[in-house]
Amino acid sequence: MLYVVGLGLSDETDITVKGLEAVKNSERIYLEAYTSILTVGKEKLEDYYGKPVVVADREMVESESDVILANADKVDVSFLVVGDPYGATTHTDLVIRARELGIPVQVIHNASIMNAVGACGLQLYNFGQTISIVFFTDTWRPDSFYDRIRENKDLGLHTLCLLDIKVKEQSIENMARGRKIYEPPRYMTVNQAVEQLLEIEDNRKEGVCGTNRLAIGCARIGTMTQQIVAGTLAELEQVDFGGPLHSLVLIGDRMHEMEAQFIRDYAVNPVTFDTIVKDHYHL
Amino acid sequence: MLYVVGLGLSDETDITVKGLEAVKNSERIYLEAYTSILTVGKEKLEDYYGKPVVVADREMVESESDVILANADKVDVSFLVVGDPYGATTHTDLVIRARELGIPVQVIHNASIMNAVGACGLQLYNFGQTISIVFFTDTWRPDSFYDRIRENKDLGLHTLCLLDIKVKEQSIENMARGRKIYEPPRYMTVNQAVEQLLEIEDNRKEGVCGTNRLAIGCARIGTMTQQIVAGTLAELEQVDFGGPLHSLVLIGDRMHEMEAQFIRDYAVNPVTFDTIVKDHYHL
Repeated sequence: MLYVVGLGLSDETDITVKGLEAVKNSERIYLEAYTSILTVGKEKLEDYYGKPVVVADREMVESESDVILANADKVDVSFLVVGDPYGATTHTDLVIRARELGIPVQVIHNASIMNAVGACGLQLYNFGQTISIVFFTDTWRPDSFYDRIRENKDLGLHTLCLLDIKVKEQSIENMARGRKIYEPPRYMTVNQAVEQLLEIEDNRKEGVCGTNRLAIGCARIGTMTQQIVAGTLAELEQVDFGGPLHSLVLIGDRMHEMEAQFIRDYAVNPVTFDTIVKDHYHL
Repeated sequence: MLYVVGLGLSDETDITVKGLEAVKNSERIYLEAYTSILTVGKEKLEDYYGKPVVVADREMVESESDVILANADKVDVSFLVVGDPYGATTHTDLVIRARELGIPVQVIHNASIMNAVGACGLQLYNFGQTISIVFFTDTWRPDSFYDRIRENKDLGLHTLCLLDIKVKEQSIENMARGRKIYEPPRYMTVNQAVEQLLEIEDNRKEGVCGTNRLAIGCARIGTMTQQIVAGTLAELEQVDFGGPLHSLVLIGDRMHEMEAQFIRDYAVNPVTFDTIVKDHYHL
């Protein structure tokens, strides 16, 4: 059996009892470590499970899935995913591959940012499509998500923006020379995301995400150091959100009164917040 | 401390280790039992926790929240929610009330249908807003969610339809006579949801959810008896999905190839499925 086990959002104790049992019964344990992170590392998980854990990078999961799946029709193998197993395309691929090989699969769900973002006070059914914001480079500044945000905005819906994570990336020089030397991991901050959004707005000028748009910056959702701050994009650009992971929610025009009431506690500046809620949202 | 603990989707072992610890340390434990259900009842949970559990109905949570919160500034109280705590408005209310009373709150997240629906093979970021379909009555046949589905459809997005649950409802006669006699619980099936959608389409005729629209019926997601069936609405109306809970996903036009590949395994009729995927989705 292949168990695909969601680990939730924070530390080793966010696994479900069912998930922990599967892991403890598994002969091999892999940890997917490139689409998200916990607040604890591999060693802590190994201590907790009393078993070795193999860190699986993107290359391994995408190109060597048969190594992970070897023998899984006879013994139990656990593939651990931060958040919920169906949060990233790459895990779906693994499940498809397992099916092709006739390996039974059991998915053990857990919280992910896709539902835990409800902690910011906005109702999940008022969210439109989720978008991902990737790090701009000097030569690559993609802005297609701007159209997605506009689609949500036109309907009055909130937008959850997932922020880029770069782990085990090579510099162009090291890649060219075939040196397996990796850059330190990078996690996009709310500030960087806002900066990029404002740059795109500056180019496109369609009024989708200007400096006065109300949003909520979220950091380390589901952990003990969770931080939620509401404000205009201009305000949030200045807030220190601390360590990863960050995400950003753009508030849609259909925000209702209870949502506003809940969020007000998180306002970086209650005066600005109240003014915008009154003038723009008419609440 | 008020712990608001998500129980996940299936049975008593879907609680997280962190959640279980909070429950075991709590002086009082309440189970919200009207927005969703587990496959196990209160007694099983009591056995598992080694503690009594008080079932909290809508009236108690909405009108007597201070009973639940009593003393929670001094002792630990757990409020258990099937799925994730932020899945329903009513739990947000409780958190707001606790804040007003100066009671510290810790939310322990878990899987909910909002993220676990990824199990059907559609990518979560391709979903638009989530809608709820309520039971039609002879005199009340609301169809405002039709407009929400159309909004998603116009953008090519999938729509998750949550299906109505009626627990502890009184008949009009019993209500009129003030008799606290309750009807048996009712859980909307995929079949009933499809029937209602087709009726609305028949009235509105905007081509939003006709008999040929491709959809996925989901039953008991996250449990051992999970059932996922893809087909046209006409086909799904005829499928037996067994016991609750059910939900329905309408597939949007932006479905991409990997999604179609994953879902094909669930097709009630692969021939119809392939034809529509080719002719309508051009995949």
